[in-house]
Amino acid sequence: MVTTRDISYEADGRTMIGMLAVPDGDGRRPGILVCHEGPGLDDREQMMARIGEFRADPLRARAVGLAGLDVLCAEPRTDRDKLAAIGYCFGGTLSLELARGGADLKAAVGFHAGLGTTRPEDARAITGKVLALIGADDPIVPHEQRRAFEEEMTAGGVDWQLVVYGGAVHSFTNERAANIDLPGIEYHEPTDRRSWQAMLDLFAEVFE
Amino acid sequence: MVTTRDISYEADGRTMIGMLAVPDGDGRRPGILVCHEGPGLDDREQMMARIGEFRADPLRARAVGLAGLDVLCAEPRTDRDKLAAIGYCFGGTLSLELARGGADLKAAVGFHAGLGTTRPEDARAITGKVLALIGADDPIVPHEQRRAFEEEMTAGGVDWQLVVYGGAVHSFTNERAANIDLPGIEYHEPTDRRSWQAMLDLFAEVFE
Repeated sequence: MVTTRDISYEADGRTMIGMLAVPDGDGRRPGILVCHEGPGLDDREQMMARIGEFRADPLRARAVGLAGLDVLCAEPRTDRDKLAAIGYCFGGTLSLELARGGADLKAAVGFHAGLGTTRPEDARAITGKVLALIGADDPIVPHEQRRAFEEEMTAGGVDWQLVVYGGAVHSFTNERAANIDLPGIEYHEPTDRRSWQAMLDLFAEVFE
Repeated sequence: MVTTRDISYEADGRTMIGMLAVPDGDGRRPGILVCHEGPGLDDREQMMARIGEFRADPLRARAVGLAGLDVLCAEPRTDRDKLAAIGYCFGGTLSLELARGGADLKAAVGFHAGLGTTRPEDARAITGKVLALIGADDPIVPHEQRRAFEEEMTAGGVDWQLVVYGGAVHSFTNERAANIDLPGIEYHEPTDRRSWQAMLDLFAEVFE
């Protein structure tokens, strides 16, 4: 059984509401920071503007991520030596930015994450393993962006993997993607399942 | 326990020696055709010439693969409804060519496989799922070749995945790659392990 509760904290001048999920038992467990998709904000224009602000200022994005990571680390059940960040869409970008910022993560995983950054030189600070899971036809993460990411990770000496999924576009993990009603945003069951397995494989490697 | 024995058959005007490996028990099991690396031939010039011949003539390559697949299918323990082909280096190319030739494979997996073909239009004939596992710095499978492969698979409507492994070059699965003593050919333990797991994940999907 897993117990969940809301948890609030301050970051970037506002109150954030996270959800903490803890398995039964007493022992410490790996702490996984899960960064949600952009549509956590309901208003699309507000969302795009906010994402734009953070993409232009990775240090600000990293500070938000670190605030969440600090909250997770403060939990008594969290094993601080076994941290990872995963995220979806802009949340995936956030998990990668956390890694670029030198956060002590064993793994950073981005599902249909924007892979670009204005600070590619910071890849040298990445200490954990990086896994990017991208739809081949994702218009938001086009081929050129994947290629720049490969070059960035290689130049930074990172232990990285990129999986490209045929037939998938953006938001392939989001069963409600159709509600967003935009081209290039669509749920894709096989890719949802396979990318989750790829993440579990990496967790098995770094946590066991 | 697994029992192995050599098995010989005729193909392409010569006698081929394959190795059959069968698990204990009586029931039928999935049949996996394993296509070896180019250096199955000891003489390098002869090897490169032979590979060149087959790359120029995919139909001839497919005929060789099909001959092996027929031998596998003739075995009483083989479940003919659960076939896959995997291969390494040129053997990976062969497994992909088998798929392009319309062989009844549930999966075709290429480890550091040459991804190019002179008959990309045949991708439409692929019935199974395709998985390509490539080192990011493989000089034999450069970025442009990966991109052409993505386009070929997408145009063919294939269920495909491509995993790119940072830090890996060609022959990352071959513990004796150093003996080959060529630049861009090197064993890479994490990628060997991860690519094997990726193949097992696909087998779990198509065979269970």
